[in-house]
Amino acid sequence: MENILDYEIYPLRKEKVLIYNHDIFKLKEDNVAVEEPLEIKLTDTQDFPINLAVTMRTPGNDLELVAGFLFSEGIIKNVEDIEKFEYEKDVFGIENKNSVIIKIKANAEINLDKIKRNILTTSSCGICSSVYIDQIFKRIERLPKGDFKVNKDLILELPNFLNTYQSIFSKTGSVHASALFDKKGNLICIMEDVGRHNAMDKLVGKMLIERKIPLDDCIVLFSGRASFELVQKSILAGIPFIVAIGAPSSLAIELAKIFNVTLIGFLRNKKFNVYSGFHRLEEIDRIIT
Amino acid sequence: MENILDYEIYPLRKEKVLIYNHDIFKLKEDNVAVEEPLEIKLTDTQDFPINLAVTMRTPGNDLELVAGFLFSEGIIKNVEDIEKFEYEKDVFGIENKNSVIIKIKANAEINLDKIKRNILTTSSCGICSSVYIDQIFKRIERLPKGDFKVNKDLILELPNFLNTYQSIFSKTGSVHASALFDKKGNLICIMEDVGRHNAMDKLVGKMLIERKIPLDDCIVLFSGRASFELVQKSILAGIPFIVAIGAPSSLAIELAKIFNVTLIGFLRNKKFNVYSGFHRLEEIDRIIT
Repeated sequence: MENILDYEIYPLRKEKVLIYNHDIFKLKEDNVAVEEPLEIKLTDTQDFPINLAVTMRTPGNDLELVAGFLFSEGIIKNVEDIEKFEYEKDVFGIENKNSVIIKIKANAEINLDKIKRNILTTSSCGICSSVYIDQIFKRIERLPKGDFKVNKDLILELPNFLNTYQSIFSKTGSVHASALFDKKGNLICIMEDVGRHNAMDKLVGKMLIERKIPLDDCIVLFSGRASFELVQKSILAGIPFIVAIGAPSSLAIELAKIFNVTLIGFLRNKKFNVYSGFHRLEEIDRIIT
Repeated sequence: MENILDYEIYPLRKEKVLIYNHDIFKLKEDNVAVEEPLEIKLTDTQDFPINLAVTMRTPGNDLELVAGFLFSEGIIKNVEDIEKFEYEKDVFGIENKNSVIIKIKANAEINLDKIKRNILTTSSCGICSSVYIDQIFKRIERLPKGDFKVNKDLILELPNFLNTYQSIFSKTGSVHASALFDKKGNLICIMEDVGRHNAMDKLVGKMLIERKIPLDDCIVLFSGRASFELVQKSILAGIPFIVAIGAPSSLAIELAKIFNVTLIGFLRNKKFNVYSGFHRLEEIDRIIT
């Protein structure tokens, strides 16, 4: 296992988290996994490079990430097709570690025009269709308005709905669920899918069709982790209270804070962590921090 | 919870699975979650519709999925922007349930040309950059060649490497890992990321840079589920033996079968399920089915 030392250690970030455990709230520092966008640009000439993709990733091993991505996409056949890998520099020569430019060798058998034509599709990951990282933040125009308070016991109850529902329909252990509740904890809608973004898209789509958006007085529950994209989709739909059974990423927390949305993670075994929007907890006034 | 009945029940598929449990192999039928591609096409005129996206999803609630996706992408502002949602029909008028055409209202404030220009980016999900579903299968040209056999005890040992490594670096419970082993079970490389496709891209990229692809004599281990995309990336890198701690999707199994790759899922608590490529198990000759 020597060669493990070769690899970059991915960064953790310390976050102030309000931890609920055995009827006690405590504010302490906890580690969260760092999630940041990586913009991938391609060029084979001196022309302005084309924007190939934006992916949310954990920083570290970016060269490997890009090489593997280009290979899996069929854009390069081997590493010799890459002439140069570099982080983009600003006018002062300072590297932007979230933007890489790949120069493809002139004799590589790839056709950037073809790529430009063919990679016009996006995935279920909302983030990836924003060509420029800046646009991610600009896309969200309206602040979620809901300003209700929620009791800790209501939060602890939410996974039961998921379990009840999933015990009926999900017998495979392999689907994600997104569930929508009103502020009293009544289930409004639940959707499942192999892709967690799809489960959330189905839920938002149903509410859109029923003309119930913005969902100001609602709580959303994710069966898995809370990524940036899921938090983004929630905020776009106006949901001010987000709960995840799994962990949130650093960028999910950042986004939740910017939009003053409540974000709860690790809701398991009668415990949970609150990462932002503490003021929506009914108990907040008697919490000694 | 009445309204749960409104929702489509997502399909399960029965698969013949070789289950290892307490030193016994048994062949039995088990449920797997269905994963299928959905092609989303947009049109606002009588012209040929543009291909907007291909997403891997669990069939069911497709209208909701598409409406939610278009909303989250900022393509529509409300459901009134959609004039018509229909499955694509072939020349005989038979619906293709994996391809939808959305007709946008003429007076909707969207610009298809702008979409065409801006959504040229893809995500870490390899599948999504294939505009046409057909191309997914055409992309994989070379069959993984590795024809070694693996002992069940070696398989049961694999998660230990993951635990050892992840206990050092992953303190957040929120990152995925992809680990590569040689056929004797020696760890070659491990990569972690908030995105599971990124972890696999990093791993493949590292091997590509070291000129070690195709990985004919290797085993890959995923810390989570085995999706179609992860199996596709493995096959493209030439890996014939895929092991996942979580569940595989129906399409992951299908792809593994087509390419005669061994696919193992649910490797937990000294148990595992084999979905394809049974012949690479050392014990296969003495398994009574």
